[in-house]
Amino acid sequence: MDVDGTLTDGTIFLGAAAEGLIEIRGFSVRDGLGLSLAGAMGLEVAWITGRASPLVLKRAEELGVPHVCQRCRDKRRALSELTERLGLRREEVLYVGDDLNDLPAFEVSGVRVTVGDAPEEMKARAHWTTAAAGGKGAIREVVEAVLKAQGRWEEGIATFVARLLRDPDPPLQ
Amino acid sequence: MDVDGTLTDGTIFLGAAAEGLIEIRGFSVRDGLGLSLAGAMGLEVAWITGRASPLVLKRAEELGVPHVCQRCRDKRRALSELTERLGLRREEVLYVGDDLNDLPAFEVSGVRVTVGDAPEEMKARAHWTTAAAGGKGAIREVVEAVLKAQGRWEEGIATFVARLLRDPDPPLQ
Amino acid sequence: MDVDGTLTDGTIFLGAAAEGLIEIRGFSVRDGLGLSLAGAMGLEVAWITGRASPLVLKRAEELGVPHVCQRCRDKRRALSELTERLGLRREEVLYVGDDLNDLPAFEVSGVRVTVGDAPEEMKARAHWTTAAAGGKGAIREVVEAVLKAQGRWEEGIATFVARLLRDPDPPLQ
Amino acid sequence: MDVDGTLTDGTIFLGAAAEGLIEIRGFSVRDGLGLSLAGAMGLEVAWITGRASPLVLKRAEELGVPHVCQRCRDKRRALSELTERLGLRREEVLYVGDDLNDLPAFEVSGVRVTVGDAPEEMKARAHWTTAAAGGKGAIREVVEAVLKAQGRWEEGIATFVARLLRDPDPPLQ
Repeated sequence: MDVDGTLTDGTIFLGAAAEGLIEIRGFSVRDGLGLSLAGAMGLEVAWITGRASPLVLKRAEELGVPHVCQRCRDKRRALSELTERLGLRREEVLYVGDDLNDLPAFEVSGVRVTVGDAPEEMKARAHWTTAAAGGKGAIREVVEAVLKAQGRWEEGIATFVARLLRDPDPPLQ
Repeated sequence: MDVDGTLTDGTIFLGAAAEGLIEIRGFSVRDGLGLSLAGAMGLEVAWITGRASPLVLKRAEELGVPHVCQRCRDKRRALSELTERLGLRREEVLYVGDDLNDLPAFEVSGVRVTVGDAPEEMKARAHWTTAAAGGKGAIREVVEAVLKAQGRWEEGIATFVARLLRDPDPPLQ
Repeated sequence: MDVDGTLTDGTIFLGAAAEGLIEIRGFSVRDGLGLSLAGAMGLEVAWITGRASPLVLKRAEELGVPHVCQRCRDKRRALSELTERLGLRREEVLYVGDDLNDLPAFEVSGVRVTVGDAPEEMKARAHWTTAAAGGKGAIREVVEAVLKAQGRWEEGIATFVARLLRDPDPPLQ
Repeated sequence: MDVDGTLTDGTIFLGAAAEGLIEIRGFSVRDGLGLSLAGAMGLEVAWITGRASPLVLKRAEELGVPHVCQRCRDKRRALSELTERLGLRREEVLYVGDDLNDLPAFEVSGVRVTVGDAPEEMKARAHWTTAAAGGKGAIREVVEAVLKAQGRWEEGIATFVARLLRDPDPPLQ
């Protein structure tokens, strides 16, 4: 999946402090719980973004997201390489993106998903548009839809909660 | 109560500055006034969160919140221990949480409350869902509902305002 | 007027950085223009807040707001003293506040105003409730209403624009 | 175009840290993509703002925006000078602004545009008001409208995507 506009509401916060510039992004704790749960159920999660910042790595680490590709302007190549590396077939790949720079990644995805506040061009090309807007739970909705389609959502909740109680250091939300 | 998604709108802001990473959370000043008022009326307020940051301690200190449990992945145990330590019965414990990681705490709470924008799984298990979303006044609504149920809301306002005028350093909002 | 919840949407952002804590508030540029225009038309603007931070002074300075009272828990006293110092009568004082800690200031104000998203207790005690919520243009609405009531709104726009073009360093918005 | 309230939702975030004050603004990644696409199609984009901060220069640099005028209180003069310098006629100039301090720039613009949440004074003087509010895609909407009016929107998408795949370091979104 894409990051800005998909995992966030599309706002890039830039700050000016005495010591230099600051870059800030806001992530949803409910998306976070969905991604932790996805990881617990064995889904391979990857973030692919044209920008680059240590804050994105920090968030991925908190949630146990194993694949992060930053400064990826050509998301088609990044997604193809990852698909090959993980030994997946294209129909096993679901990609979520919110804007025109995600179109190349759509070309190599089995399931194309966009977010509720995406432009019409994206909705027209996606198999499915989430009800939630980017950064407002769209990714949580996707995780839930995938696990429900696999008949594993209730099992996912139970697995996630059991891990919270058992694991000394489970992923965050 | 839980913190992220309950006392906040669920947004985790992460920033990258020259000197390292920054973590930011947004709290509601109206929730803050509710918690100050709750404290003035003798309610024992506790925050239980899986994350850990000095900013949460700072906010608790501003509002005079006496119990803060950070890095609590197992919220059931944290809440049980606090209940015992305070000499309370389970039916005297009201817990507010917004997501699946709060389910274990629900098991040991007399009154289970969730927020207006919580997922269906939470609403189905809660005794009551606030009209307001997390971070948008849900906690204020809970404080008001509890004090009104006890017939002490008007007294609460009077006590709170009197303290503002009398106390040299009252809790903030 | 009050600051948090009135000039802002009530969100207190707290951040944790390597060097210590950060406090952030978000102000509306449209409220800012309203306050600059109010100053250009000779209205005396004052901010009265229970909290204290240099960022509030910075914002007041940008807008040319002449009176700022921070760490004012007893807003009634602060407003009374200011009224006396400026040689005003109570009926010349309009106060805008969003929550219960503003009630004491209401007692010494000729016109009591609250914001669109204020609790019912405030709306019941206010002469007027703005359509806009706090931080979303409520103060701009108040400035416009006052100048329109005085028949000076169009003159205000003209004065404000003329000053932009003439003054080498006019207040910001 | 104007910056605050037009490229942002009008919120000026001010922060107080141990080392001094911080100024933060939030930009839309969808507006960003629109501006990158506008640049790829040969539109000359300029930002004209009364405030001044290195964060605005940083954002302009990310998007390849060639003209940035900060601390411009007299936007009419700034826009006139730029028009002349670029050898444009007034009817080739489209200006987007959200508030009264943009009125002087309207006087020297061929097409006057304001944003969906602008005050009535702006909407009454604008040729067109975007559906989106400032900072919520208003600028994306303007870029799309201009290129569609020129019959170049589809070409714009194709050009933009081709550049993403070919250019080693294309503008960000």
